Parts: sequence; structure tokens; C-alpha cells
Amino acid sequence: MALYVQKFGGTSVGTVERIEAVADKVKSFRDAGHDIVVVVSAMSGETNRLLGLANAIMDEPTPREMDVLVSTGEQVTIALLSMALNKRGCAAKSYTGGQVKITTDETHTKARIRSIDEKNMRADLDEGRVVVVAGFQGVDEYGNITTLGRGGSDTTGVALAAALKADECQIYTDVDGVYTTDPRVVDSARRMERITFEEMIEMASLGSKILQIRSVEFAGKYNVPLRVLSSFKDGPGTLITIEGDEKMEQPVISGIAFNRDEAKLTVQGVPDIPGIASKILRPISDANIEVDMIVQNMGADNHTDFTFTVHRNDYKKAKVILDDVCEVLGAREVSGDDKIAKVSIVGVGMRSHAGVATQMFDSLSDEGINIQMISTSEIKISVVIAEKYLELAVRSLHSSFDLSEATEA
Amino acid sequence: MALYVQKFGGTSVGTVERIEAVADKVKSFRDAGHDIVVVVSAMSGETNRLLGLANAIMDEPTPREMDVLVSTGEQVTIALLSMALNKRGCAAKSYTGGQVKITTDETHTKARIRSIDEKNMRADLDEGRVVVVAGFQGVDEYGNITTLGRGGSDTTGVALAAALKADECQIYTDVDGVYTTDPRVVDSARRMERITFEEMIEMASLGSKILQIRSVEFAGKYNVPLRVLSSFKDGPGTLITIEGDEKMEQPVISGIAFNRDEAKLTVQGVPDIPGIASKILRPISDANIEVDMIVQNMGADNHTDFTFTVHRNDYKKAKVILDDVCEVLGAREVSGDDKIAKVSIVGVGMRSHAGVATQMFDSLSDEGINIQMISTSEIKISVVIAEKYLELAVRSLHSSFDLSEATEA
Repeated sequence: MALYVQKFGGTSVGTVERIEAVADKVKSFRDAGHDIVVVVSAMSGETNRLLGLANAIMDEPTPREMDVLVSTGEQVTIALLSMALNKRGCAAKSYTGGQVKITTDETHTKARIRSIDEKNMRADLDEGRVVVVAGFQGVDEYGNITTLGRGGSDTTGVALAAALKADECQIYTDVDGVYTTDPRVVDSARRMERITFEEMIEMASLGSKILQIRSVEFAGKYNVPLRVLSSFKDGPGTLITIEGDEKMEQPVISGIAFNRDEAKLTVQGVPDIPGIASKILRPISDANIEVDMIVQNMGADNHTDFTFTVHRNDYKKAKVILDDVCEVLGAREVSGDDKIAKVSIVGVGMRSHAGVATQMFDSLSDEGINIQMISTSEIKISVVIAEKYLELAVRSLHSSFDLSEATEA
Repeated sequence: MALYVQKFGGTSVGTVERIEAVADKVKSFRDAGHDIVVVVSAMSGETNRLLGLANAIMDEPTPREMDVLVSTGEQVTIALLSMALNKRGCAAKSYTGGQVKITTDETHTKARIRSIDEKNMRADLDEGRVVVVAGFQGVDEYGNITTLGRGGSDTTGVALAAALKADECQIYTDVDGVYTTDPRVVDSARRMERITFEEMIEMASLGSKILQIRSVEFAGKYNVPLRVLSSFKDGPGTLITIEGDEKMEQPVISGIAFNRDEAKLTVQGVPDIPGIASKILRPISDANIEVDMIVQNMGADNHTDFTFTVHRNDYKKAKVILDDVCEVLGAREVSGDDKIAKVSIVGVGMRSHAGVATQMFDSLSDEGINIQMISTSEIKISVVIAEKYLELAVRSLHSSFDLSEATEA
């Protein structure tokens, strides 16, 4: 008999029929004797409808009132799901964030959770009720309604699991787990039974957008076992857990992430003096352009080349800015390419294995793929290549690192 | 400089444009230096949308969860109206019922207000803010969300006005005041400047459905001056106040109410023994049929005739029930008529004037209108007549009691 926190997103509760299906799923866990806390998002489309109303009034609506407005979305869902459970003879009670109460700081529209009072939920669980909590919302110390920002319902789920010391926080999504890479690119991509928090963070930030990074970090910090499962079909999903847990040996590489929407920009022949990186990137960030990879090489004659990547949509805007910067700095020229892609291999196991980078570069070289940029972290190696080679590179690496085989138990 | 509680119903806030118009109106009072607490309903249609979702799940949804669900309707409106006020440079802050806090009993979907904490609202008013409160809702002592049932937003407005000792509770509607009778029937019907609470209750229950009776009773009990005004055009509306206030003399009759959707049923030749009324009406109320007027006359030979009126839609159902009852009681027969109407004259002044009834009956008699039933209260005389005479009767009485003339100051 376990205590599970189960989180269902907007798509999973997007219609009355889907809410009924969620109720069936929750009831099956309850019937098996488990204690269940359910966290739900607003029905898909509802948050956008509410934002539309607000934006019809103001371009930048009062943040406090935005939170009062959009928090109604989850409140509708908790009521409907509780009804659907009650209809099934499964006693359930809904809680808004304020009713729990989930106390946050006062940063409206992107508040951070400060504390959770688990007393009332615990009392309901002890009396055999399913507890249905509105995700994404809380109250500040003065009782003002706050929301946690994008992905906030995942964060609520993890935070409740931590507060209740739940056995698992189960995140139900439209995929049935985390895969070694995108199955649309590699047929033999395999659902992982487990992945570490660190690997998941690297996979997520590289475009495997199953979970919000923030909730994964949060789960890692409080050591809450996270499980990603499908709302729509049964299956064990993927467990996200701390490193080395119960495992004989880590696979060297766990998965391959990629991102095709990148563009790179290079300022060539920049005088190699302190503060030059900031002089180049400040105008870019001032223009609200997000920078991904950054590479700077030693150059000759006290000059260097400075390269970074941005989202492809920002390429032209960034190029114009850099042309100005180039002139001011007395650099030689700005070059760029908006037909590139990034491929990354991710794995906690690479820490203890020499030669992983070599194997990656050899594998790409064997296919005649030129590597334009390289960037590494403790558990990840990323390369930038021409976009046309993306699928070939991913398949080649997936095969080279034996990811198709069931290397796990 | 006064403190006004201003209540706007669902139609008045039914679209973003109308919410903006309400904001303009509120701001004009604020700019004139008054303190304002606004009470709003859900945008028209929203409550029905939410009920539709609930009913798609359950025929009789869990009352506690119904309140969680439908209370989101007003929460959306308070946020949008506060934004619209802020946009106009008019500082505003929204409050859910729970945030106020408005404490109720635990009767979900038709809770009664127990207490109101005016501390937070007062602090905001003192700092120059408009306070925007969600009507229709509160919380019980355990923090569960409750709703007040139909017309609950009017009740919220009156209750807040009482708690804050406001100078007036202004109810904005789609009419510009209370009229001596329906202007669609009598061209010269006149907006009343004042009406007493008691008269208003009699007018309301007789079909002048401007205000919920409950809120008028509540206002009378706590001596809160109520004013009915139009949301859509300017004007002083009608003040509903305690009897005799500032007036030299009451007019004998204040207004004429009527109801055309009635039907009457008579059980003839009923044995005149104790408990007979209950034996006849119990099956009717068990069938959820509401009874309006009841008249029983002394009869001959220990037998009596028992007559009552119901809504016309319930006529056939009631007839079938009575036919059974008639047989059980050994009554002679059941007769009925679903082409009747009720006309009532209402006025606090009739208490001190003999001859009002005579004047009414004479006036109808002069037009050749036969009176089928009569029922009286302290400040009201109602008659049932054939429906075809309704307009004629109302016009004749309106003229007979000089209601067209501006008898008030």
C-alpha cells in the first residue's frame, strides 16, 4: 500500500470524457488499496480563453488579478474530477491551492512555493478520501492568490509528494515514458525504465519537452521519485530517480537529444581582451534573444573567434545587432548559418568512461558528418552539425551506443 | 463623500465591453470622492456553462464540488473588472468571498451568511482603492467554498453594505427603477422615487422580478438603504427604504403588480373537517408544485369549497393529483381554470385608509370585470380575474388610484 501523487495535465483533462477516464484510472489505484492525491491542470484551452479575456482589457494585465483570473481554470477541474470520482463511489474532496494551503512568495504569475501544510490532506487520506488538488496555484502569506508560472502543475505535484513523503510522484502525459531518442527519427528508440534526475534535466533542456526542468530539479532536490506515464494507455512509464539507485552498472549513454531549430553566429577576428564576451552578448540579451551554446577559441595575433547559437527565428535580428557590434569592437567580420542542428548524447555513465567523446566523433566521421561546434558538460556532449545530417547522425549514434538493445534489466 | 456598495449582475458584466462600461461608471463615483465596494456576478452564460459541465458528469453533482465549480464564475469577473479599473488609473483590488471573508453556514448551494469580516476591505478603502468582491459566495468555518443560491449576489451586496455601514447599496439592473406597474401594459406607468421594503417585497413576490425577495428582506432587517438603478443609462433609480422616512404622507397605493401565468383549481363539496387543507395540499407539494393563493370559504351542510392557484405549467399535473384526492376524500368534484390572472394593489398607505378594497372592487366592477378570488394582507389586496381582462384591470386601477400623477415630491 503506497501513497501516490498523480498529476494530470490539461490535455488529460481536456473534456468531460477525459476527466471520466482519469477518474477511472485514479479509482483503479484506490481500489488496489493505495492512498491517492491527484493534481490537475486547467482543461486544455481554458487558460488561453481566460488570457484572451484579460488581454481584451489590458495589454499587460495587473499580475495580482491575472492570478485571480487564471487560477479559476484548475478550480473548475478539481470540482469536476471530484464529482466524477464521487459518482464512482470513490470518495473525493477538492482543494484549491489556498485551501491546502500551499504558501508561496508574493511574485504573482511566477511565484515560488515556500511551504505546504499537509495536515488537512492527511486527514482526508486517513478517512479514505482521494484528495484532488488544483495545480499551478497557491496563496501568499496575506492570502492573495498566486500562480507558479508555466509547468506549475508539475511543480505542485512534486512539492505535494515531497511534503507528504509520497512513494512516487506520477506525471501523466501524452507519451508513455522517456525514450532513448525521438521514435519518429529512430524506429528502434526504446522507452527507458529509469533515468537519473541529472540526465532528465539534460534531456529536457535539449528538447525532450516532457517535464518542466523546474519540477525535475525540485524532485531531485527533495529526492522525490518521479514517474512519467501515459494518461491514455497503461504501462510502467519511466522512473526518474537518483543516480545509481539499485543498479549494478550505468549504461554509458542513456539517450540522444537533438534540436533542429538552431542557428549559429560567429564574430571573427575579435581583439582578445577581457570583457569581450560580455560586449558581444549584452546587446543580444538586451534584445531578449536567448543564447544556447557558446564557444570561444584561442586565436592568433591576440585575436579570437567567438561563436554562439540562437533559435532560428532570432537569427536575422541577431545578425543585425552583431554587425553593429563588429564595427564597434573592430572585429573582422560576422558570419553565420541558420541551417544547423544540435545533437547531444546524455548519460551519467560517461563520467567514468574515457573515450565516449572519441566514440561519438568517430561515429559521425564514419558517416562523413562534419562537426562545426563542440560543447561538453559532466554528463553530456553536444555537437553542432549541418541540419541535413541530423537524422543520419541521431541514428548512427543510437546504434553506435547500443541504445536499441535492452541494456537495462 | 459617501460609501456605496454597488452590485452589478451577470448581464451588466456579460462581455468585456460591458465590464469596461461598469468600470467607467464605478470610476465616475470614485472621481466624485466616494468610497466604492463593487459586488459582481458571473458573466451571463458562464454559470450555465459550468452547470452544463457538472451535469455532463452527474445528474445530481456533489453539492460541495458544485460550489467549488460555480464560484469560479464570479472570480473571473472580479479579476477582469479590477483590471479594467486599474487600466483607468483607478486602483482596485479583487476579493473572493473567502478572501473577504464572508463566513456562511455549511449548506452548500444555498448557504446563509453568518458574518462578514470588514477589516481587509476597510484597509483597502482607507488606502483609496476600489474593492471588488465576488458575489454569491463565501466559505464555511472550515474554509470550504459555499454559494448563496439564486440571487445570492444581491444578498452579498446588502450584507456587505450592512457590515460596512454603507450609505447605500445600489443594485444595478436592466431597468431604471421600480415602476407603479409594468410600462408595457400602462403607458403612463411612473418610476417611483421611493418604495418601502414591505411594498417592494409584495411587488417582488407578485412578479416584479427586479430584486430577489431575500435581499430585500435582508436590507430591511439591517436597515440598509437599497437603490435600484440601470446599468446602462444614468438616472436616480428607485430608493427602497423604511416606512415613512422623510415623507409627509404616504400615497394610498404605491403600485400595481400582476401575474398572468396562473391557474386555479377548486375541490368542491369537501367534508369540512379538521386537517382537510393539509390532505389536499400535501400531495401537491409532494409533487413539487408551488401553491400561490389559497382560499377556503365556509360552506353549507358541513361541506366546503377549497380553491388555490398554481403556475399555469403545473395545472394539468395538479388536476390529475386532485382527481385522486377528490375520490379519497369523498369530495364532489374538481374544477379548474387555466386562463386566469392575478392583479394586486400594494401600498403601505392602505393600512390607514378605509375603503381601499371598495375602491378597487368598484373600479373593476365599473369595467364589467368579475372577481373570482380575493386575498388580502396588511399592505396588499389581490384578486383573481379572467386573463382576458388583465390589461383592462391594471389600467383601470392605475388610473383609479391616481398612480400616473407625480404624487410624490
